[in-house]
Amino acid sequence: MSILCVGSVALDSVRTPFGSAENVLGGSAVFFTAAATLFHSVQVVGVVGEDYPLHELDFLSSRGADLSGIERRTGESFFWSGSYSSDLSTRDTLETRLGVFANFEPKIPESFQSARIVFLGNIDPILQLDVLDQVKNPDIVACDTMNYWIEGSRDVLLKLLERVRILIINDEEVRQLAGNSNLLKAARWVQEQGPEMVVVKKGEHGATLFADDWLFFVPGFPLEKVFDPTGAGDAFAGGFLGYLAKAGSLSPGDLRCAMVYGSIIGSYAVEQFSIRGLINLSPKEINQRLIEFREMTAFETHVLSEDHV
Amino acid sequence: MSILCVGSVALDSVRTPFGSAENVLGGSAVFFTAAATLFHSVQVVGVVGEDYPLHELDFLSSRGADLSGIERRTGESFFWSGSYSSDLSTRDTLETRLGVFANFEPKIPESFQSARIVFLGNIDPILQLDVLDQVKNPDIVACDTMNYWIEGSRDVLLKLLERVRILIINDEEVRQLAGNSNLLKAARWVQEQGPEMVVVKKGEHGATLFADDWLFFVPGFPLEKVFDPTGAGDAFAGGFLGYLAKAGSLSPGDLRCAMVYGSIIGSYAVEQFSIRGLINLSPKEINQRLIEFREMTAFETHVLSEDHV
Repeated sequence: MSILCVGSVALDSVRTPFGSAENVLGGSAVFFTAAATLFHSVQVVGVVGEDYPLHELDFLSSRGADLSGIERRTGESFFWSGSYSSDLSTRDTLETRLGVFANFEPKIPESFQSARIVFLGNIDPILQLDVLDQVKNPDIVACDTMNYWIEGSRDVLLKLLERVRILIINDEEVRQLAGNSNLLKAARWVQEQGPEMVVVKKGEHGATLFADDWLFFVPGFPLEKVFDPTGAGDAFAGGFLGYLAKAGSLSPGDLRCAMVYGSIIGSYAVEQFSIRGLINLSPKEINQRLIEFREMTAFETHVLSEDHV
Repeated sequence: MSILCVGSVALDSVRTPFGSAENVLGGSAVFFTAAATLFHSVQVVGVVGEDYPLHELDFLSSRGADLSGIERRTGESFFWSGSYSSDLSTRDTLETRLGVFANFEPKIPESFQSARIVFLGNIDPILQLDVLDQVKNPDIVACDTMNYWIEGSRDVLLKLLERVRILIINDEEVRQLAGNSNLLKAARWVQEQGPEMVVVKKGEHGATLFADDWLFFVPGFPLEKVFDPTGAGDAFAGGFLGYLAKAGSLSPGDLRCAMVYGSIIGSYAVEQFSIRGLINLSPKEINQRLIEFREMTAFETHVLSEDHV
């Protein structure tokens, strides 16, 4: 199943308690693609300025990314800089310069329009809708969003959700979107707006998939070394959808496995700055954490005798 | 394996967004015992004042609790009142009256001194140490503590930890105790102080068992209706140790299953005020959530071919 990804292609400057990185590769489309191409090829649509070091994305092409949908325009690339708190639980945005991203109008190349899976990174829901008007009946439309759009573009966002099959969102945002602090009720509310499934990302606590009448939990991989949480959510989405594309199925078994792969790829992403943790990641390393995830969650059900008390 | 539990036996007045309950049964020993007796008998040591409605604990005796170690003294029982925030994530203590608990000196009846499992509820670590001086070589000493003792009685607490096999503690507290915001490092630090295992309780995010060279995650059961989080941690500890006592083993398989039972019992505890959710809880209801936990966490490991990229 072919994947189309539309999102930001940015330069980030990030400070964490463990160091800093200046003008490194970032943006939702970049993190997603670095993750998803570990499993499957990806068609990417975005925009960059004259300053963007596109050659640094060559490794993505070599593992199946088609970057021909990334437009280069006159001007600066989208730039974000932020600083994380000592425990990495919060971050302050120091600077945002939209650059050429301010006038981004996704144009989906004809050869991308038949993608079976579409991932809409966290951009203006008007643009996300615009992308859906350009593609031909994909099997899976998955999208991310954030507090900025939930507050400022609620109506458009709700219109978008009617056309989304899987909403991938973090826990604070889904509570805000649904106006309900109870996660289960918040996810069920979202499902009433259109999405068949909701994937709630919970940082170090992992993620939960809310499907029609079942749900699935995957923990966050326990790490001694978290260097940079930037992009972890997009890396999760990339691992999740990349695995589903490879499996070619939305069976409950494949959805569960996709959740685990999402968490694995997210865990490798945060161990280094930018997408560095995903550049040389091998199937062997991915498999190793898969086995560890199984050991950390599997148990035998010793049910109680019904007259034991 | 017999269980001895020493902790507070209190009256609570609790306000949540869903209602309030006045002067209801509370305290760590009460929640623990209401949970653990679903699996195994428990010997309880505590103190109450003249006002305590001990007859309301009769149902615990009928399922195997020996309450003869609860001393009744002249004066008022330990009283706590608190109010939860609208999303139940934080609470304010409105009033604490120690009453007879202020001079609590646990006296372990001779018939309780050979217990194989000892649970030290969250009381002054001086008293927790005092209990350990009165018992004969238990197989498992498990204890809980809180920020108050971590701040004010750190030295005694560290001395206690040398004699504890399983520390059961919440995530904020273990980070505070270890002075490390990374949960894995914090738990490993605790293990260097003595405990072979650390069980970290994470509220709605479930709990993690850190054993010698492995760990196990159990999620929180997803609930639409959380009425009153008071006592959830002690109910978890009761389910966890109650199951281990019943199993009579600390095998990895039984420890994993005990974690799941802890989370199940905790989930039933928070669905009603006080210990009401645990009074009529049936093995059938417990088994039902056990099966559901399995469905929410089990996955087939489809490992990647090592040359797929």
